[in-house]
Amino acid sequence: MISRQQAIELDESDALADFRDRFVITDPDLIYLDGNSLGRLPKATVDRVRATMAEEWGDGLVRSWRSGWMAEPGSVGARLAPLIGADPDEVLLTDQTSLNLYKLASAALAHQAPRSTVLTDSGNFPSDIYVLSGVAGAAGGSVRMVGADPVAPSTSAIEAALDDQVGLVSLSHVNFKSGALLDMSSITTAAHEAGAMVLWDLSHSVGAVPIDLRGSGVDLAVGCTYKYLNGGPGSPAFLYVARHLQDTLVQPIHGWWGQEDMFGFGLEYEPAPGMDRFATGTMPILSLAGAGVGIDLTAEAGIDRIRSKSVALTSLIVDLFDELPAGYGFSLGSPRDDGVRGSHVSLRHPDGYRITQALIERNVIPDFRAPDVVRLGAAALYTRFVDVWDAFERLREIMESGAHEEFTDERSGVT
Amino acid sequence: MISRQQAIELDESDALADFRDRFVITDPDLIYLDGNSLGRLPKATVDRVRATMAEEWGDGLVRSWRSGWMAEPGSVGARLAPLIGADPDEVLLTDQTSLNLYKLASAALAHQAPRSTVLTDSGNFPSDIYVLSGVAGAAGGSVRMVGADPVAPSTSAIEAALDDQVGLVSLSHVNFKSGALLDMSSITTAAHEAGAMVLWDLSHSVGAVPIDLRGSGVDLAVGCTYKYLNGGPGSPAFLYVARHLQDTLVQPIHGWWGQEDMFGFGLEYEPAPGMDRFATGTMPILSLAGAGVGIDLTAEAGIDRIRSKSVALTSLIVDLFDELPAGYGFSLGSPRDDGVRGSHVSLRHPDGYRITQALIERNVIPDFRAPDVVRLGAAALYTRFVDVWDAFERLREIMESGAHEEFTDERSGVT
Repeated sequence: MISRQQAIELDESDALADFRDRFVITDPDLIYLDGNSLGRLPKATVDRVRATMAEEWGDGLVRSWRSGWMAEPGSVGARLAPLIGADPDEVLLTDQTSLNLYKLASAALAHQAPRSTVLTDSGNFPSDIYVLSGVAGAAGGSVRMVGADPVAPSTSAIEAALDDQVGLVSLSHVNFKSGALLDMSSITTAAHEAGAMVLWDLSHSVGAVPIDLRGSGVDLAVGCTYKYLNGGPGSPAFLYVARHLQDTLVQPIHGWWGQEDMFGFGLEYEPAPGMDRFATGTMPILSLAGAGVGIDLTAEAGIDRIRSKSVALTSLIVDLFDELPAGYGFSLGSPRDDGVRGSHVSLRHPDGYRITQALIERNVIPDFRAPDVVRLGAAALYTRFVDVWDAFERLREIMESGAHEEFTDERSGVT
Repeated sequence: MISRQQAIELDESDALADFRDRFVITDPDLIYLDGNSLGRLPKATVDRVRATMAEEWGDGLVRSWRSGWMAEPGSVGARLAPLIGADPDEVLLTDQTSLNLYKLASAALAHQAPRSTVLTDSGNFPSDIYVLSGVAGAAGGSVRMVGADPVAPSTSAIEAALDDQVGLVSLSHVNFKSGALLDMSSITTAAHEAGAMVLWDLSHSVGAVPIDLRGSGVDLAVGCTYKYLNGGPGSPAFLYVARHLQDTLVQPIHGWWGQEDMFGFGLEYEPAPGMDRFATGTMPILSLAGAGVGIDLTAEAGIDRIRSKSVALTSLIVDLFDELPAGYGFSLGSPRDDGVRGSHVSLRHPDGYRITQALIERNVIPDFRAPDVVRLGAAALYTRFVDVWDAFERLREIMESGAHEEFTDERSGVT
């Protein structure tokens, strides 16, 4: 049996231990295992957003657009770029993930005509599947969906489903339920050999898993900044377009922020060169400021150190799961192999919803995902090994006492 | 000649004078006449955003989605509704103006098939024209553009251009350059008689001009919250869909925030009933908090009192323009008739760009709009009559001394 002392010793040798102090933590007893849904508040964000309000907005007023804000979608994107293996001029912070997916998937299918099938798997985030279905339908095609194995990446099944009708392959790098990590390089190569483009959703991997978009030859990617990047609730998402495609693709929402000379106010849309053409309208600057702080903090910690700790944390979760009595009725909903697992682990249980409620009552915050998944996220910048150990101790108390049976099963959650 | 004392007396009898103290004003000498581009920072926003960070995000963490954030696009929209003559369940705060225009114009044209012409005027905001051209083109149609008179509303020309090919009429309620105010009711009625739907962009009228969407029979509307509503840089925009159309129209971006049961995570898109189907992804909560404060402040002041002061301010601008020596070379780029003028006045001058630079150097902030417009915005909540008088005094000094000739003409601006 793994002891609490062993967990404490893991924390004592944790190279990232000091980063926990960089976050606002109001309740030391709270065990927060949902940083993969909404990351914690960095202390620096409080100061940065306050300065954005007081100095840039309050004092600088409209002048701040020219002195800084207008460049931020690109400059914050450039700071994110090293975390995903992109060049600084290949990333833009703008809009939301579903919107960016819509823009890039539409642009890709227009480029790939007459190919109009979008290939994905059933473990892709449902919003992505909705967006892709709409985009494919508008292009006269449809989505082809490979079944996702609940505990293993569907890499080979996806590759086997490629043919000459597929114009675009679009997948979540890490499955939002199982945490299964797809082989980006292999799928991208196979898609290209079949004549398809590839669009990755990095929402559940960015800031947790090393990503090499350029090395993998990826065409397009999107992702959010409010999970492992700690950008804040609904902070702007990002999009990536490989440089050689930037001046070829045209996205369908022709807003002025994508216009070549936006202040020339000509009446014809002339898409800007480079990444700017993938922008649409004015960005929410307070929320964008938060995204920048979270990205910088992640870059400072270093993605390799983060991944190393993340693997150790999720391995501890798997080990503690293995020690649970079989009679509790849990099954593992995530890959056992560290190499194909992102930064969260899912425990499946028929009473998963009620168990989640009981954990929350005991000051442990996991996430519930219908129909039966208790999702435990390991955000390396502030999650301690002892937090994971204590969470399992509280889980044991619940299962021993049947405390979860006091709750009613009303379905809910946030990704 | 209007004296400075007369302006001071107007301020002394200003029913809204106290509202100026509700804003952060760091430089008392600065004359800010660009609140129609970016409104000032309300003091309450500083506190509200700080609480959103510290209490809702930092302490509440992911729980705050359920305890408040998820409802905010609708609840802030409901607070905006009275300002535009809508019912509370007809308005949603979400995304940006160009995106909302794209969603609603696409939904309208799909509904109006085979009609695929979009009617607008050349005074519409260029981003709107770009979006509409893209949407019409995707539907196999095009934009029909009526020329906008530089100093008068193009209401009758628009009505005359209606025919049975027009599926949608989409216009800016107030022209971003001239400030000309279109007759919403008349155009909407004429469009309906011709079988077209109507989509208004209220960006330059909301919070400054009384708007009666329901009374005018308007189908659809969008607008921003960062101008007269003082929501903050890039704060989320709004969209309005008349109740009887909400369950009929389907917008093309099928994100999970528009899904009927977003946490059921089904794999088929089922658009939510009511306004929710016009949402796409996760909203930027810090920026949304700012929008809510600005809307509440405007509602507290009351749109009729705001309009009354706004008309007095823009009338003073026109009167002071009339007193400028003809030799200065200005012409009026806005309607003289208060009844068809929004809340800004444009002065045209061949050296408009350089004059704008000279005004900024003298701590007066107007906006420049190519090719020759010096735009003076009158935000009633914090602009004083004496500010307008002093701005003209500084303008006279510039024209007398030729100070603007020291500047080079590099074109720029922000809407």
